[in-house]
Amino acid sequence: MNRFEPNLRIPGPTSLPDAVREAGARQMVNHRGPEFAVLQNSIVARLKTNFRTENDVLIVTAAGTGGLESAIVSFLSPGDKVLGITIGAFGDRFAKIATTYGADVTKLAFDWGTAADPDKVREALKAGGPWKAVLMTQNETSTAVTNPIQALAAAVREVAPDALILVDAISGLGAVPFETDAWGLDVVVSGSQKAWMVAPGLVFVSVSPRAWEAAAVAKMPKFYFDLVAHRTSAESGQTPWTPAVAVMFQLDVALNLIEQEGQAEVWKRHAAVGAAVRAGLTALGFKLLADPKFASDTVTGAYLPDGLEWKAFNGTLRKLGLVVAGGQGALKGKIFRIGHMGHVTIPAILNAIAVLEVALIELGRPVTPGAAVAAAQVAALKSLGLAK
Amino acid sequence: MNRFEPNLRIPGPTSLPDAVREAGARQMVNHRGPEFAVLQNSIVARLKTNFRTENDVLIVTAAGTGGLESAIVSFLSPGDKVLGITIGAFGDRFAKIATTYGADVTKLAFDWGTAADPDKVREALKAGGPWKAVLMTQNETSTAVTNPIQALAAAVREVAPDALILVDAISGLGAVPFETDAWGLDVVVSGSQKAWMVAPGLVFVSVSPRAWEAAAVAKMPKFYFDLVAHRTSAESGQTPWTPAVAVMFQLDVALNLIEQEGQAEVWKRHAAVGAAVRAGLTALGFKLLADPKFASDTVTGAYLPDGLEWKAFNGTLRKLGLVVAGGQGALKGKIFRIGHMGHVTIPAILNAIAVLEVALIELGRPVTPGAAVAAAQVAALKSLGLAK
Repeated sequence: MNRFEPNLRIPGPTSLPDAVREAGARQMVNHRGPEFAVLQNSIVARLKTNFRTENDVLIVTAAGTGGLESAIVSFLSPGDKVLGITIGAFGDRFAKIATTYGADVTKLAFDWGTAADPDKVREALKAGGPWKAVLMTQNETSTAVTNPIQALAAAVREVAPDALILVDAISGLGAVPFETDAWGLDVVVSGSQKAWMVAPGLVFVSVSPRAWEAAAVAKMPKFYFDLVAHRTSAESGQTPWTPAVAVMFQLDVALNLIEQEGQAEVWKRHAAVGAAVRAGLTALGFKLLADPKFASDTVTGAYLPDGLEWKAFNGTLRKLGLVVAGGQGALKGKIFRIGHMGHVTIPAILNAIAVLEVALIELGRPVTPGAAVAAAQVAALKSLGLAK
Repeated sequence: MNRFEPNLRIPGPTSLPDAVREAGARQMVNHRGPEFAVLQNSIVARLKTNFRTENDVLIVTAAGTGGLESAIVSFLSPGDKVLGITIGAFGDRFAKIATTYGADVTKLAFDWGTAADPDKVREALKAGGPWKAVLMTQNETSTAVTNPIQALAAAVREVAPDALILVDAISGLGAVPFETDAWGLDVVVSGSQKAWMVAPGLVFVSVSPRAWEAAAVAKMPKFYFDLVAHRTSAESGQTPWTPAVAVMFQLDVALNLIEQEGQAEVWKRHAAVGAAVRAGLTALGFKLLADPKFASDTVTGAYLPDGLEWKAFNGTLRKLGLVVAGGQGALKGKIFRIGHMGHVTIPAILNAIAVLEVALIELGRPVTPGAAVAAAQVAALKSLGLAK
C-alpha cells in the first residue's frame, strides 16, 4: 500500500467513477437489436443537452483524432480554402488532417500558451478566401489554454458568414460552459475519455444543417468516417459499423451521473478544481504555461524549473501514485501537465498537490510543507464563493 | 425468469466470458505510461501466435470496417489495379473501400453461398494486370461461407507473384485453422468482437515486409488509419491515437483464456459447434445457405421456408432469449444467421437448437420434439471423434 491513493491526473483517459467502470463489464447485446437502439437514442438525446444543440449528434467508434478526421472528410472537398487556427499540437493536427485530404489550408498560428485573437482571425479571413471552413480548438490539451470560441466564431461569422466552423472540443466539452447553437458552431467534436468520464473508444460529432448541405457536395474520399452514413444509421438507432458497445454502456451511466449533478454544477466543479490546481502549482513555485486569462479548467501545464529534470520528477511522482503527463512537441521535457476533467474532485486535486509537495521535498527543492495544499484549498473555496 | 438462458447468437458482437467482461471494468491507466506498454507488447506477442505470423501486428481502435480501410489506404495508391474477390456483402465492402480511394478495382464476384474458385481467380488475374493487390475474404459473414484462402493465395502467387494479398479475416481468424506466414498473406485484418471473445472497438492488422515496402510509396490519403504511424508508435508499446483501453484489458484476459485452452483445441471446438449447428438446422428442415464444402464454422445461414416470416420468427426466438441475425443485402428477409464464434460451447448450441424447436412448434411448423437437439449433439460428438 501507498501512503497516497493512485491518482491518474493526465488529460485523458481520465479516471472513471465506479458505476461507470462497472458498466464496462456488462454482457454484449445485439447492436442491430431494439435494446441497443433504445440505448443509443437515449444517449444521443442526453449528448445533445450537453452539447447545447438541436443539431444531430453522431457517435463514431474511434479516438478523438478519428472524430477530427470525420469532421474534415465529411464536409470538405480537395482544394477548399480552409483557415486552420492553431494554438498548439492539436490545432496543428486538425490542420494537418485537412491538408492530408487536399484542402488548401492557411494556418494561423499563435504562440503556445496564448489563446487565438479574434482580431487576428478577422484580419486573416479578410486577407484571403473565399473560405469554405475555419478550424478551431476549444481546449488545446498540449498548452492548457481554452480559446474564446464565442468571440472567434463571431469573428468568422462577421467576415465569412457562410464558412463552416469546425471545432475540436475533445478535451473541454462537458466540463466548461459551451454553446453549440448559440455560438453558431457547425461541427463540434468531443471524445468519451475526457470530460465524459468514460473509457476511450467513442467520439461524438454534432452537425448543423449548414454542414449537412456541405456534405452533399463534399468530395474528399471517405468510408469509415463518412458522417452521412452515420446519420442514416442513426435514424434507426444504429451505427453503420459495429460500435464499441461496452463503452456505450459506460457512457449511458456517465450521462446519468452528469444529469444528476447538473450541468451548471459540473461547470462550477471544474472551475473550482482548475483554480485549485493553478493556485497550488503557483504556490509550489511553478510558472504556468497558459495565459492566465485563458487558462484551461480541464488541464494545467507548468514549466519545469532549472535543475528539475522531467524523468526524475515524473519517477518520483509515479512512486507516490501520481500520474501526470509530460510536454508534447516543442514542449517535450520542458513542462508537465495535470489533467482535471471529468471525474475530478477537490480532494483529488489536494492529493495531487500534496504529492507534488512531497516529491519536491524529496528532490531537495525549497518547499514549505502544507503551503501549496492550503493555497489550492483556498482557491477552490473562493471559486465556489465559500471564501473571500 | 425465462425457461431458457439468454443466448446471443449473432456473428459479433459475441458473448463474453465472465473474466473478460469483468476486465472491462478496470480503472483507466496512462496509455503513454510503462504499464500500458507492457500490456500492449504482451498482447501483440500473443496475437502474432494466433495469427501464425512473424509479421508486425498492429492494433487500431475502430470497428472491423476501419481495419479494412487501414489495409487499403496504407498500402495502395489511386489508379492501382486491384482484384476484389467477393462472395458476399463484406467482400463487396472491401472492394468498395478500394474504389472510394481511387483504386482501379476489378470485381470478381461469386454467387452468394459459394466460395471463390482458385481457377477463376487465375483466369481473372491472367486477363488483366499488372496487379498491385488482391482482396479476399476469409470468412464471409453475410453468407456463412469460408473461402479456401490457402488455395486462393497460391493462385495469386502463381500468376501475380508480387501482388499484395489483403485478407479480411475479421470473423474467422482465431476460430479456424489459418496460417498468415505459411500461406504468404501480406495484410490480414481481424476484429476484437469476433472469435477473440472481446467487446467491439479494436482491430488487429498484420503487415508483411512486402506490404511495408508498398507503404513507403503508397499515395492514398490517410491519417487516422495510417498503419505506418501505428508501427512507429508500436515500437514504444503505444498507439498513435488514444486506444480503447478497456477493450485492451479485456483482450489481455481473452488471449490468456485462448492460450490456456490451446489453439488446436479452440479450432476443434469451433469445428464441433459448426457441425452441430448445421446438423440441428438441417434436422429442423431448414435449407442451409452455404455450399457444404465451404460451410463456415463461425456462422451458419439458413433460408426461411415459405410461410415462415422473418419478423414473426425472430420475435418468437427473442421471447425465448435467443438472439440471431437476419440476412444482409439481397438476402434480407430471406435467411437468418446463427453466430458460433469465440465464447461458444456445445451446450450453448444445444440451447439454441432447443429454442428453435420450441419456436417452430409455437409457430405451427411440423417439428418432432428433441430430434434436432439429438442430431446436433451427435454431430458434435462425431466431429470430436466421440461418436461414429
